[in-house]
Amino acid sequence: MLNKKRMAAASALLREKNLDALVVAVSMDTLYLAGLYMKPDERFKGFVITPGEKDGNNGFALVPELYRHEFEERVGGDLPFYFWKDEDWFYDSVKKGLDDFGVPRGGKAAFNDSVLAADAIEFSKRWGYQLENGSDIIASLRMIKDAEEISYLKKVGEITDAALYEVSKYVKPGMNERQVLNFIFESFAKHGADAPGAGAWGIIAKSENGAVPHYSKMDCDLKTGDSVIMDVGCNYKGYHSDVTRTLFIGEPDEERRKVYEIVREAQQAGLDMVRPGVRACDVDKAARDVVEKAGYGAQFFHRTGHGIGLAIHEDPYISSSNQTVLKEGMAFSVEPGIYLPGKFGVRIEDIVIVTADGCETVTKFPKALTVV
Amino acid sequence: MLNKKRMAAASALLREKNLDALVVAVSMDTLYLAGLYMKPDERFKGFVITPGEKDGNNGFALVPELYRHEFEERVGGDLPFYFWKDEDWFYDSVKKGLDDFGVPRGGKAAFNDSVLAADAIEFSKRWGYQLENGSDIIASLRMIKDAEEISYLKKVGEITDAALYEVSKYVKPGMNERQVLNFIFESFAKHGADAPGAGAWGIIAKSENGAVPHYSKMDCDLKTGDSVIMDVGCNYKGYHSDVTRTLFIGEPDEERRKVYEIVREAQQAGLDMVRPGVRACDVDKAARDVVEKAGYGAQFFHRTGHGIGLAIHEDPYISSSNQTVLKEGMAFSVEPGIYLPGKFGVRIEDIVIVTADGCETVTKFPKALTVV
Repeated sequence: MLNKKRMAAASALLREKNLDALVVAVSMDTLYLAGLYMKPDERFKGFVITPGEKDGNNGFALVPELYRHEFEERVGGDLPFYFWKDEDWFYDSVKKGLDDFGVPRGGKAAFNDSVLAADAIEFSKRWGYQLENGSDIIASLRMIKDAEEISYLKKVGEITDAALYEVSKYVKPGMNERQVLNFIFESFAKHGADAPGAGAWGIIAKSENGAVPHYSKMDCDLKTGDSVIMDVGCNYKGYHSDVTRTLFIGEPDEERRKVYEIVREAQQAGLDMVRPGVRACDVDKAARDVVEKAGYGAQFFHRTGHGIGLAIHEDPYISSSNQTVLKEGMAFSVEPGIYLPGKFGVRIEDIVIVTADGCETVTKFPKALTVV
Repeated sequence: MLNKKRMAAASALLREKNLDALVVAVSMDTLYLAGLYMKPDERFKGFVITPGEKDGNNGFALVPELYRHEFEERVGGDLPFYFWKDEDWFYDSVKKGLDDFGVPRGGKAAFNDSVLAADAIEFSKRWGYQLENGSDIIASLRMIKDAEEISYLKKVGEITDAALYEVSKYVKPGMNERQVLNFIFESFAKHGADAPGAGAWGIIAKSENGAVPHYSKMDCDLKTGDSVIMDVGCNYKGYHSDVTRTLFIGEPDEERRKVYEIVREAQQAGLDMVRPGVRACDVDKAARDVVEKAGYGAQFFHRTGHGIGLAIHEDPYISSSNQTVLKEGMAFSVEPGIYLPGKFGVRIEDIVIVTADGCETVTKFPKALTVV
């Protein structure tokens, strides 16, 4: 269903930035604005948001004729639709929409980050617009969660916590990485996550596999002495969780123990830095400083975190170059890691929601070194 | 593994089109060029192809540091890599690569259709390039299948045929649409399709559901008198099949029978038109004319077909506006349909490969009206 308040807020940002149009292809941005998500394909499907309005609307939809039914069913009659046929492609319906909404040719058109370059370039060439990167426009609205969104993030955190408690009792030497992940998926579903299977994802990576941050094979058996990174998430009413714990199968050796405590301290330093007024890069620095002082700086080669909400990765990104000032209602991960190729990796991650004077993690599963 | 011949062919097209660079994000294009596919996300991963060469290479890869392992494992040392870190984003590594390959600033840069508008716009603004739509460059190479690719398309067609024969004996009144689809998936796997589940897809749409071309719920039971659209596909060594048959549960009524015969005749007219030298739009017209003459033109509201290969939908698109001249080795669907909202739909589809003097369908399952 169209969210007129969010559409109006987007339109206000266009006026502020002196933009003539913002083209938004189907993505989490259209889910946020109108409850509409569809798998992107070669046919452009999405919205054009305008700085002005017409009959109370701040934009219109461009829809391939083939998807008429789905659009009408999901977005209803609240937004003007311009349907286009395969043989015409979408150019003429864009023009008609721009004319109807009084958008002049030749100004500045921005594009969100789900529009394909090919479509943006054709749009610009045919209708004479200067192209602008508009990926931060809807993102800046999505970055501040409202009370309903926060309640979903907390709920999905609770579901995720429940699965962590269950898996920590379940996991044993001899089990396969994939088997552990499947158990977690079942646990998510049991505790009320949306779309069992489809919305859940995860990485279970023992010892040397844990040194590859995006390891995906998951075909190894766990044995005594292994460390195991569990990086998993699910969703609730479209909102995602993302948590990482590193557990130990039997007593860890000295190096694992040492690295674990550094990462744990780094994550806590990051969490302690989070409050309104602090910049994203300050949080990254707080966590990174701990790792660097311990001599493992080169082994922590990713940003400290990423925003989360309808997308698993969204603004604000917690990196050393992001000057974004944190505000109440932002939600993001704090997840330093240390990766020792061929040996093991350790990562600890929680999603935090920025509060009036600090932050709250949505997952509470303990971070003291846990031997299973 | 890098395919140097295909990279060189792409580079030659850049010289022909007077382009200074072609940016190709991970997609079926990178799978075609180097056996590399990765799920796209917010971090740019892909290649820059250059009109010239350096040390026998026609371009370089841009890789987030986080994916170093995966890139090195899959593409090996055959292509120069420029790794970039989260805090820098990819701009500086692009500049270094462009300098190393002697690509001047300020010329024309093209982008394939998996590059996001935001990345193309930043690339252009920072390094002063004019943006060009480059989605047809690798697509034009992929459009002509070589002998190995044709053998995979034929094999995946055989697997698909086998599943059609099995399901036509299996389907009975009282069965659920989803149950029929799951049976087909199992049959695909049994007959040797890749990645059981992951690579297979399908639409099973009875009577009124068949009037929605992209129907996806699939929760209805089949009953006597229903028509059933079965639009399914799987893959073999990365190459896709896509076939549609409309079967009947018990004797069809007169209207269903009439519409079926029109669609069957239209599809045959399309197939009969396919040979080298004919344009894509001629094939569309041949099929569409039959439907229009029968008075159902408005109920056939999609293009007649789409190319197929590593992607399910790729060039050439068989639409009334596509002037592309068919050549030996092209592969595409011919799939007219008629959709009567609230009543039923009929679609018949085969993939054809253009031969020296006509075409061959990769699926042979009969198209005579079939009652099950």
